[in-house]
Amino acid sequence: MNGTGITAPKGFKAAGVSCGLKKNGNKDLALLVSDVEANAAGIFTTNTVKGHSLMWTREKIKNGKAKAVVINSGCANACVGARGDKDAEEMAKFAASLLDCEPEKVMLGSTGVIGYPLDMEKIKYGIKKAFERLSADGAPDCAQAIMTTDTFPKQASKSFILDGKKVTIGGMAKGSGMIHPNMATMIAILTTDVSISPELLKKALKTVADSSFNRISVDGDTSVCDKVLILANGMAGNSPITSEGAEYNIFLDALLEVSVTLAKMIAKDGEGATKLIEIRVENCSDRANAHLILNAVAKSPLVKTAIFGNDANWGRIFTAAGYSGAVFDPNKTDIYLGDLLVCKNGTAYPFDEEKALEILKKDEVTLVIDLKDRNVCDRMWTCDLTYDYIRINGSYRT
Amino acid sequence: MNGTGITAPKGFKAAGVSCGLKKNGNKDLALLVSDVEANAAGIFTTNTVKGHSLMWTREKIKNGKAKAVVINSGCANACVGARGDKDAEEMAKFAASLLDCEPEKVMLGSTGVIGYPLDMEKIKYGIKKAFERLSADGAPDCAQAIMTTDTFPKQASKSFILDGKKVTIGGMAKGSGMIHPNMATMIAILTTDVSISPELLKKALKTVADSSFNRISVDGDTSVCDKVLILANGMAGNSPITSEGAEYNIFLDALLEVSVTLAKMIAKDGEGATKLIEIRVENCSDRANAHLILNAVAKSPLVKTAIFGNDANWGRIFTAAGYSGAVFDPNKTDIYLGDLLVCKNGTAYPFDEEKALEILKKDEVTLVIDLKDRNVCDRMWTCDLTYDYIRINGSYRT
Repeated sequence: MNGTGITAPKGFKAAGVSCGLKKNGNKDLALLVSDVEANAAGIFTTNTVKGHSLMWTREKIKNGKAKAVVINSGCANACVGARGDKDAEEMAKFAASLLDCEPEKVMLGSTGVIGYPLDMEKIKYGIKKAFERLSADGAPDCAQAIMTTDTFPKQASKSFILDGKKVTIGGMAKGSGMIHPNMATMIAILTTDVSISPELLKKALKTVADSSFNRISVDGDTSVCDKVLILANGMAGNSPITSEGAEYNIFLDALLEVSVTLAKMIAKDGEGATKLIEIRVENCSDRANAHLILNAVAKSPLVKTAIFGNDANWGRIFTAAGYSGAVFDPNKTDIYLGDLLVCKNGTAYPFDEEKALEILKKDEVTLVIDLKDRNVCDRMWTCDLTYDYIRINGSYRT
Repeated sequence: MNGTGITAPKGFKAAGVSCGLKKNGNKDLALLVSDVEANAAGIFTTNTVKGHSLMWTREKIKNGKAKAVVINSGCANACVGARGDKDAEEMAKFAASLLDCEPEKVMLGSTGVIGYPLDMEKIKYGIKKAFERLSADGAPDCAQAIMTTDTFPKQASKSFILDGKKVTIGGMAKGSGMIHPNMATMIAILTTDVSISPELLKKALKTVADSSFNRISVDGDTSVCDKVLILANGMAGNSPITSEGAEYNIFLDALLEVSVTLAKMIAKDGEGATKLIEIRVENCSDRANAHLILNAVAKSPLVKTAIFGNDANWGRIFTAAGYSGAVFDPNKTDIYLGDLLVCKNGTAYPFDEEKALEILKKDEVTLVIDLKDRNVCDRMWTCDLTYDYIRINGSYRT
């Protein structure tokens, strides 16, 4: 009997407990364990400044193997000098001793405030407590334990048939702004029971992340994902995927679906957000230009506040595209709010304000920029910018 | 007897009147006239989407000569198709007929909401009214007439001796976020009675703008200046500056001082802002890296909300530097709030929270990132991000 999220695939157990790192007593230590050693891959922040726990994981996952993942919230274990590296190692060693595996097979994550060392007594207490509660139903607790200012836990899963076997992909994620600033705005952990070579697993993760986790922006401070890990333990029993082909593509599509679902949850739970915004660039000349426009519009505080205010202020979208650095012809550009045309060939197009208001008042708003050039289409997700973003981020660290 | 701001130099008259473009009846038409034809230069937005009035000016100023500047607020004259170009031309022609000069010598600016055509009847009424009120004391009215969501008019001037003559530089500016989105977030008009060749005037403007108007960011939607014009009418009577040398440098320094004063006023009047933030990068390897870091920190909503909340959250500054794309060694980086060291060699440095609070509570806050590499230093100005930014920008266009 499988659970939800990261324990939906065969052979994964999880737990999430409170060990006292969060002052409010909420769950703050997450443990995920695969029954058998899994193939593993990871993608990490491109930030020059990196957390100590993240550095451990980035190094160890190079072997392509993992048995477990330990993540604490409430403290980023970042910018604390040599002690941070020692603490990370100790955290992995302690978990490994309980799990009877090599420390190198334990991946780590820490998310929370920067510049404070980990309380290792609490961490160890938490790992032990989580170890004792490991279960195939532990995914919801685990997803809660990695939350920081998230307002809801983020889980997804999908099953499909591959090589005549039922294969499942599960996932959990956290992130809703770069909270109390940490290196780990965003963490996503994906699990699957598929059998796939480490090389292809890595390739699949990279491909999928570029169209999901790397396509969300809450406040522009998080332009690339901070950490996405995937563990594939092979317990579905399919013949191992060792080359790109039909089966690899089926797996890729399912992985993309789970990843996009989690990514959209993160954008929707952006700090203070009331709406999910999907931005689409259509008929662009190439991917680079599309990406520049998507990024500029998704990061524009003026676009994001206009959507918050239900304001059909398409000029802000057009202007952001204009300063994005993308090469395009403004005199050919159409802009839509949902399916409502508001700007045609770069010029104001008369539209029904009531209809616009109706579209903007929904929980999910789509903005379309049609460049009428070539056929490259792409999309990105963000959220509106609200008073609550200021409240959440303007408050004292204490 | 000279006035303040743009009429401080000899031979300039100005006026600012209300012609009904702004619904609240505030001044919305500005006119500046030089007694004699002036050498002129301009710098314009790099945005792919450009307003019609701006396009006129960008084209006509190539001749290096100008007699007058007409600017309206309340309507951007942007994205309205061929009509926008026709209206701009008519605006210049009408002013030229009153001033008895060629239309090509009238520079234009329009700032306000995008996608609505100019009401030419009001524009003409305004130009006529302003023409009748032209005066050497008209600078304050003129500075008011270019305001949009600015909370105070922005003027500066400076006199100095050159070639035994008293020379004066004056200026006015507007801008406090990319309001009701327009092409002209920022407009600055500089005047001087110095005698200088058009080529050197253009060079001086470019040099100075790069260290002043191009170094302010309110919301990241305005990374480069939208329009800066300078008119030099030569009435100070100095021997014309025609080559770079001591006199050019004296002029350059004074122009920089006036420009930085105006630029800081714009940053301080950022929409909803309560504080001016000066960001300094010190001992950087080169200008490109310094610029990347300055830009990332100045645009970071997390840094800006932290300063609003008087939160000594240096991790956000460090993180923004980290994702800026700049090449630097995080383990050598020191961070200061004002003169208070809070991060040494990339690691948390114990500091007095009371002292930090005292620094952060001031009207002007300086953030210093010392990379301890080479000797390149640079600075940029921004403001904090507050509830009022959301209120101002989240409201309906109506």
